[in-house]
Amino acid sequence: MLEQVTEQDIEAIAIGAGILGTGGGGDPYLESLHLRHTIRERGPQQVLAPQALDNDARVVVVGYIGAPTVSIEKLPRGDELLRAIRLLERHLGRRMDAIGIAEIGGGNSLGPLVVGLQAGIPTVDADGMGRAFPEVQMSSYLLHNDVLVAPFAMAEARANGVVVPYTVNALWAERIARNLAVSMGATAGLAGFVMTGAQFKAYCIPHTLSLAHELGQRVLQARANDEDAPQAIAATLAGRILFRGKITDVYRRTTKGFARGTLMLQGYQGEAETLDIEFQNEFLIARLNGQVLATVPDLICIVTAEEGQPVATERLRYGTRVAVLGAPAAPQLKTPVALQVVGPQAFGYGVDFAPLPGQRIGVDIT
Amino acid sequence: MLEQVTEQDIEAIAIGAGILGTGGGGDPYLESLHLRHTIRERGPQQVLAPQALDNDARVVVVGYIGAPTVSIEKLPRGDELLRAIRLLERHLGRRMDAIGIAEIGGGNSLGPLVVGLQAGIPTVDADGMGRAFPEVQMSSYLLHNDVLVAPFAMAEARANGVVVPYTVNALWAERIARNLAVSMGATAGLAGFVMTGAQFKAYCIPHTLSLAHELGQRVLQARANDEDAPQAIAATLAGRILFRGKITDVYRRTTKGFARGTLMLQGYQGEAETLDIEFQNEFLIARLNGQVLATVPDLICIVTAEEGQPVATERLRYGTRVAVLGAPAAPQLKTPVALQVVGPQAFGYGVDFAPLPGQRIGVDIT
Repeated sequence: MLEQVTEQDIEAIAIGAGILGTGGGGDPYLESLHLRHTIRERGPQQVLAPQALDNDARVVVVGYIGAPTVSIEKLPRGDELLRAIRLLERHLGRRMDAIGIAEIGGGNSLGPLVVGLQAGIPTVDADGMGRAFPEVQMSSYLLHNDVLVAPFAMAEARANGVVVPYTVNALWAERIARNLAVSMGATAGLAGFVMTGAQFKAYCIPHTLSLAHELGQRVLQARANDEDAPQAIAATLAGRILFRGKITDVYRRTTKGFARGTLMLQGYQGEAETLDIEFQNEFLIARLNGQVLATVPDLICIVTAEEGQPVATERLRYGTRVAVLGAPAAPQLKTPVALQVVGPQAFGYGVDFAPLPGQRIGVDIT
Repeated sequence: MLEQVTEQDIEAIAIGAGILGTGGGGDPYLESLHLRHTIRERGPQQVLAPQALDNDARVVVVGYIGAPTVSIEKLPRGDELLRAIRLLERHLGRRMDAIGIAEIGGGNSLGPLVVGLQAGIPTVDADGMGRAFPEVQMSSYLLHNDVLVAPFAMAEARANGVVVPYTVNALWAERIARNLAVSMGATAGLAGFVMTGAQFKAYCIPHTLSLAHELGQRVLQARANDEDAPQAIAATLAGRILFRGKITDVYRRTTKGFARGTLMLQGYQGEAETLDIEFQNEFLIARLNGQVLATVPDLICIVTAEEGQPVATERLRYGTRVAVLGAPAAPQLKTPVALQVVGPQAFGYGVDFAPLPGQRIGVDIT
């Protein structure tokens, strides 16, 4: 298990988080640079295993919200998450003791390390998704009705800050936060989901920062040894390769703060073998010749065919040769209650969840 | 000058505020009922002349924000403004001493009386517009750069509440507040523009609550005496009748939290005499046969031909016989600095402001 994050760990975490991002969560590149800079300035960031949290510690969950297509154009200022935490602390009248990761997928894995260093508090080795999801309410932290999104705070690159003391429910929190992100220029830092250490331990998906690190290390090792990198990724996640081929079409639009679209791939055997993937920031449904192969909440990851480099929705390009992987989601996301929030129907698809076999993400391995 | 508002004053204020609303500010009808109910429960609301404010008193400015086309469909719960004030007070760590009116026009004249009663503090006899305007930054309170919109708070009929501790500037406050209003269902109560009594006295448009009351009384008197009500209104506001005729066409759409559109009228002489009015919640530009007759910030008011009843943008109907009045805006809105914020060009029209002669609104008559 990861006990701290040094400069040497950043590349592996970024690769692993990119894979777990299933196309979303924001490009880890900019946040990698930012984390490197912050570690050089302040030293390694301490990582706390969830079971090491004091039961009465206060954990604040942070992440960027918005369309990843915008986050690679509108550069962050670097203190958005810290300003959001400070606004929230002021509202609550108390300091936070540890940083929780909202989603391990994509750049949202790294921001919580940067802001932990800025605030001088550890980041917990866990998250609320074991992947990335497009909406705020899609979180294991919220499935038990005693942790709420609000009060939450948001800040953006310009001097705009907002505190939301209360909302009707998590769906309203998502709606208000999403609209705020749009009105602030489509990306903003968010801090909220405040909970005790006891709650965090009970509801988090544990050790996903360590998993991202391990996954990235495995990819780097495969590249160094000329192994099949996609195969190494599938093995690490207890998943399998769904498809190998090249991207033949991308239909994409950025609307209401999301990058939505459909992706078409063709196998090396030609037109007889076609995979289409529907995405909404993240890859959600994969169909082979029209037959559903995998669905959310299970992970559908796209990596380059040779290097196993994760490909995000905002980086999809015609002609790229890729492998598409499927991996079983964390068990916390596959309960009946969870599937109402993160299953295919929650995204508007008339498809039942048919879980991939096996398990690795979210299994407590200590 | 009005020293308190009793049940007997409500009708006159609602009529006067409807006229000063120049089509916007929200229909006063629902807020009239609400104020009547609140006065029956708690007694008359105290009205404070601005010059009677302590210099170090804290004044909070309140109003509903959103599209008036929606406010007649989505009923308020009645405590939106109070909840917004309480959120702001909690954020600032101090109680407010008096209620400032954001805009005297429309229903926004009455909400500040209701919430004053609910909070047990007086409402000041003044506002920031001397009329209604569609956007938050269009306010005399803000023209001197030492009063800011933020921190401000918003609450809506459902249990959603937001505090905005800071924004880049007033335009960003407008943008964020507008988007929040849209995400909350297109209307919400807003409390902000916190200032001292000294600042309020210096920047407000004085005695506009008394003016609304006087105007409404004059209309009621004209109706009782079979006088020409539109003429009585024009005389009270030092304005004039621009046009008499009937509505022949309304092009309207509710978009981005605004009711926008164009209105066409035809004179009783037939097609040779055509008035068109552009509106964005409020009536902004009036053209007679294509020639500009009056522009914002001067008031363009539409009242029914016989009764002098104000007609709001959301109540425009084909065939209604009306009088269109023009009245000179408060002098505070006609400085070069103010015209950059509330002149025709601020609304995107390539028309210069040609002020109507005379003066009544915003002139301190004590």
